[in-house]
Amino acid sequence: MTTPTAAAAMRSTVPSRAGAVCVGMVGGGQLARMTQQAAIDLGVDLLVLATSKDDPAVQAGAHHLLGDPQDIGDLRALAADCDVMTFDHEGIPPEHLETLQRDAVALAPTAAAKLLAQDKLHARRTLTARGLPVPDFAFARTAHDVERFAATHGWPLIAKAPRGGYDGRGVWTLGDAVAARQLLDDLPGGMLLEPLLAIECELAVLVARSSSGEHVTYPVVETVQHDAMCREILAPAPIAPAVAAQARDLALQIADLIDVVGLLAVEFFLTADGLFINELALRPHNSGHYTIEGCATSQFEQHLRAILGWPLGLPTLLAPSVVCVNVIGPPDGSDPRANVALALCVPGAHVHLYAKAAQAGRKLGHVTVCGQDLVPTREAARLAAALLEGTAS
Amino acid sequence: MTTPTAAAAMRSTVPSRAGAVCVGMVGGGQLARMTQQAAIDLGVDLLVLATSKDDPAVQAGAHHLLGDPQDIGDLRALAADCDVMTFDHEGIPPEHLETLQRDAVALAPTAAAKLLAQDKLHARRTLTARGLPVPDFAFARTAHDVERFAATHGWPLIAKAPRGGYDGRGVWTLGDAVAARQLLDDLPGGMLLEPLLAIECELAVLVARSSSGEHVTYPVVETVQHDAMCREILAPAPIAPAVAAQARDLALQIADLIDVVGLLAVEFFLTADGLFINELALRPHNSGHYTIEGCATSQFEQHLRAILGWPLGLPTLLAPSVVCVNVIGPPDGSDPRANVALALCVPGAHVHLYAKAAQAGRKLGHVTVCGQDLVPTREAARLAAALLEGTAS
Repeated sequence: MTTPTAAAAMRSTVPSRAGAVCVGMVGGGQLARMTQQAAIDLGVDLLVLATSKDDPAVQAGAHHLLGDPQDIGDLRALAADCDVMTFDHEGIPPEHLETLQRDAVALAPTAAAKLLAQDKLHARRTLTARGLPVPDFAFARTAHDVERFAATHGWPLIAKAPRGGYDGRGVWTLGDAVAARQLLDDLPGGMLLEPLLAIECELAVLVARSSSGEHVTYPVVETVQHDAMCREILAPAPIAPAVAAQARDLALQIADLIDVVGLLAVEFFLTADGLFINELALRPHNSGHYTIEGCATSQFEQHLRAILGWPLGLPTLLAPSVVCVNVIGPPDGSDPRANVALALCVPGAHVHLYAKAAQAGRKLGHVTVCGQDLVPTREAARLAAALLEGTAS
Repeated sequence: MTTPTAAAAMRSTVPSRAGAVCVGMVGGGQLARMTQQAAIDLGVDLLVLATSKDDPAVQAGAHHLLGDPQDIGDLRALAADCDVMTFDHEGIPPEHLETLQRDAVALAPTAAAKLLAQDKLHARRTLTARGLPVPDFAFARTAHDVERFAATHGWPLIAKAPRGGYDGRGVWTLGDAVAARQLLDDLPGGMLLEPLLAIECELAVLVARSSSGEHVTYPVVETVQHDAMCREILAPAPIAPAVAAQARDLALQIADLIDVVGLLAVEFFLTADGLFINELALRPHNSGHYTIEGCATSQFEQHLRAILGWPLGLPTLLAPSVVCVNVIGPPDGSDPRANVALALCVPGAHVHLYAKAAQAGRKLGHVTVCGQDLVPTREAARLAAALLEGTAS
């Protein structure tokens, strides 16, 4: 579809309410699905630009337009029907966001802020220019560029596509110059290089910031990755208080620097040399799913409050330990929805399913457990997730 | 509409998912709306029989049929499309529930159990027969019947329509025989009489019970009534532990007695002579809204788990004091949705709006606050509700 008229014609028949504020969200994935649950509480209408009626947010009953987030006509159709536009992913062409902004569409975050989540090279350059700690990096267009970086840092190197990657897609480990040359053939536009860091753990911090500049910072969490995909979130991160304080401070500096409106998630590497900023996301984030049960205000409600200019809620952690484990589609393609009753046998397990078609390696849901101590809390969350995946031993 | 075919033709275009379990709920009010939020988490499809697209659950994006809960054809249309049928209100003709049961429709609760919530006289007689404490009562068809009851208990008396009342509707205080005669003219079928008790407070207990007989009992709460409508819920009720234990025990006895599947709410009067059972509800209940943030498992998720035969969740209270205050439409007819940002200024206030057309005296939402002590927690919840109503001083 290419015209606003066509997209509007595809609008869902769920009725809009007179007088309700309408938030437009580009994308109908699980982040939009959980935002829809929060919107119901606040009496806010959420209108998503979805690619299919099978999208998780559409399944959850969000108002929707069917269209293509790459299509300016479809984005304009969404803008025409909402009071403020926000995002559940990064896959919107930055030039379209600039266009919408020139059209006076209220974007939260702005096109310039969003670009820091969309373009890893731009983010590295921007943060470096402000003296913020990022891993050493280089932009490589040629084999010579790669070899020069390797001469300083040694092999292997990490290569990233500046745009478009997520969940490990768009990231490669290069073992030698031959591998680098092969990858350059696939990435003629060039690639971001960084050394393979000796990472002690990965951390994430969520900051919510409203248009008035009011902000709240959530606890620092550890994100445990398996196969380059976030698998577990431990809240609070089991790290030294000084490190946590520094991570929160850095996240807040970035939020102010880029004048974010809504949520900012900052991902960090913790190494023996300290903290390095890895990636930014300007939207609700997988590392914040634990906030639904684990914090006084969920990230989804917080995002709505921030982009609507409403007062922010308390980010307080509600239990000594909160663990969230993602439910990943098992290799046999079976559907976790068939195993809900089993997972609910685990005391305190909060099950969230995204209504996505089951597929190996796909994030299909998550489980959160609030507890007193990390070890048993994590075991309970892992068990419930494994039961959903059909992989519990 | 009168035929299943017609109702089916009115079905919403929100797509159903292959393989998802479908719960049918008669009624699309706020209880169905909050059940929809819980259904999203569990990957359950909720299909409501709504009377209008403006109904709160439809506004929240629940799958829906439009129809009349008094119409057996529409009820059958709902039954045909769901795996189990449940209710968000009492206003379904009991004989239709009997018919559906003869049709082998899976009802949770059963017609016989539901009747105890639908017919106050039947409930009183059933509970009395089992030796459970109810207020003295009589069924009066004539002025003579009323005067005989008054001779024992004195004036004023409380009169209730056996069926159809809620939120103070269907309940009258009779000052004398003249008033009694006038009411009898309006209630030719007769009325339930009880003495005007000296009530210290009103209490409520929620029990969830699954088809396997597994059950959990929520904390005893105090329900504070204004103008015969529940205005505040205090959890836990500030009462002696022995009274709370007795209330929980009575509620559990009733749940077992009537073999309930799903939620049972038991309302009590506490007097100097002890506890008396007032009314029963077999569905999520206003007195349980505090469980969304206040308990490890919300009543809405619990109801779904119970009627689907899934393991029940922990009913544990998560804070020392949880207070829920209903948002009632103010006399000027203004809409609380216009005041959300103000209410969110109150730290820790969880706002739930039902998307109902604003109308004086109508329940339009509620606010829950979790805290350490009753007094400040109650003050915060009252303030947020008053801000929503536009009545804060």
